[in-house]
Amino acid sequence: MEKEKWKRSARLVDLTNQLLSQPYKLIPLTMFAKRYQSAKSSISEDLTIIDEVFRNEGSGELETVAGAAGGVRYIPKLDLARTEEILANLCVQLAKPERILPGGFLYMSDLLGNPTLLSEVGRIWATLFAGVKIDAILTVETKGIPLAYAVANYLRVPVVIARYDYRVTEGSVVTVNTVSGSSGKLKPLSLSKRSLPQGSRVLIIDDFMKAGGTIRGLQDLCFEFEATVVGAGVLAESHVPGRLVDDFVSLISVSEIHERDRTLRVEIGNLFKDKFVE
Amino acid sequence: MEKEKWKRSARLVDLTNQLLSQPYKLIPLTMFAKRYQSAKSSISEDLTIIDEVFRNEGSGELETVAGAAGGVRYIPKLDLARTEEILANLCVQLAKPERILPGGFLYMSDLLGNPTLLSEVGRIWATLFAGVKIDAILTVETKGIPLAYAVANYLRVPVVIARYDYRVTEGSVVTVNTVSGSSGKLKPLSLSKRSLPQGSRVLIIDDFMKAGGTIRGLQDLCFEFEATVVGAGVLAESHVPGRLVDDFVSLISVSEIHERDRTLRVEIGNLFKDKFVE
Repeated sequence: MEKEKWKRSARLVDLTNQLLSQPYKLIPLTMFAKRYQSAKSSISEDLTIIDEVFRNEGSGELETVAGAAGGVRYIPKLDLARTEEILANLCVQLAKPERILPGGFLYMSDLLGNPTLLSEVGRIWATLFAGVKIDAILTVETKGIPLAYAVANYLRVPVVIARYDYRVTEGSVVTVNTVSGSSGKLKPLSLSKRSLPQGSRVLIIDDFMKAGGTIRGLQDLCFEFEATVVGAGVLAESHVPGRLVDDFVSLISVSEIHERDRTLRVEIGNLFKDKFVE
Repeated sequence: MEKEKWKRSARLVDLTNQLLSQPYKLIPLTMFAKRYQSAKSSISEDLTIIDEVFRNEGSGELETVAGAAGGVRYIPKLDLARTEEILANLCVQLAKPERILPGGFLYMSDLLGNPTLLSEVGRIWATLFAGVKIDAILTVETKGIPLAYAVANYLRVPVVIARYDYRVTEGSVVTVNTVSGSSGKLKPLSLSKRSLPQGSRVLIIDDFMKAGGTIRGLQDLCFEFEATVVGAGVLAESHVPGRLVDDFVSLISVSEIHERDRTLRVEIGNLFKDKFVE
């Protein structure tokens, strides 16, 4: 059965779908030319239109790689205006006094359960770390997991999960001790030996950082796996004295949590202030 | 500043992007007409083209709702041929003897860490449960979490996570006892009171089911919240005698796991065989 040549309108729709659903994947132009029974020059024209729309609307860009092994890939991004809008809205939602839990924690599970918000947050991180070579995203059970996958979905790198309790279904593990900066207590943190290849370039993602004991533990695990930490991102940070980690990017900053008066202060984090990648 | 009228080609690209990035969201045509400074009739023509391409390529469809409160929404789906291809490939990957872990478990963390595979699995479940009204997806820490979010990302409903250990950051919780069908041991399972509104329609998602003690525990939790379970999906089932749950859909079926000989049998699950939703 001979395939029919696609019309430009249908080609534009399908190309957009193909690119959006496979971020970072380098797709050879010959693949598209064959799929649409169209000349490469026509495909190139289509890609120029798509790239222009994506850039104008702040949703990313197409990267073209020349040569025999070349092709085109979609780099998802989110523009600054939309990023600020999303984070400002998140600040308002987090600033509600009823979120304050015993111990100076904040109830965030409802927000972490919202797939649209997660997708937006994932896109923000994917934009911040777009220029960085990353082999894996490392997080810790339980609340870091949805955030790690939200980023991974845009950067298309695997997620590996460290655990506080050893699980039989993990096979053999490497364990380090983490110290809770708030309580000073020790807690073992484990990572399956099979889960992270030696020498990987790792992006650490977690939900909430106080003293940074968890992030520090994840860094220690990376050291054990001879992996390089290329960045660390937390959704929210709450400043406490004696911090164990300096180099991280936070989207939200929480301070002045007064459990008794039920007041708190929520601002946009350090993402616009600091350089955060090596 | 007056907005410029968009060309059809740019409109098709942006419309496709807008629809794909907001599954299930009803978007009024007037919103698009304003965004593109174009007549509603032109938008309707564009939507017809997009719907046709999506349906032909098996990646979903557009649903148009007439009337003043109407609009268009994207329903993500995956066609049968691609579903079978993905599951057959997953079977091959799971059938490797080195995946067998002590206790008759299978190492699946690498697969659960792969965002592309998760996205495909999420789309398969989104297709299976496309006609069902769902308010929330319920899963249990830790390995069910990425799967639950993968589905949620297509169905755009919130994820709620039950936990085996009570966490301070959850606020007050409801706890039930689950019985491990394999070992007969009791284990408490908790869900934050704030996380699931009374009377919700719930889809349960988990990674691996043997006797079904976890799924049964999640059903019990739903009962406590006066919620209706509209379906249950597991990535893989392994048949054991004395099963506690009948009504579930599995994508993969694992049997004849022989730890000693390191052999096992992996097939496509019951998703094509049974009716799975109420």
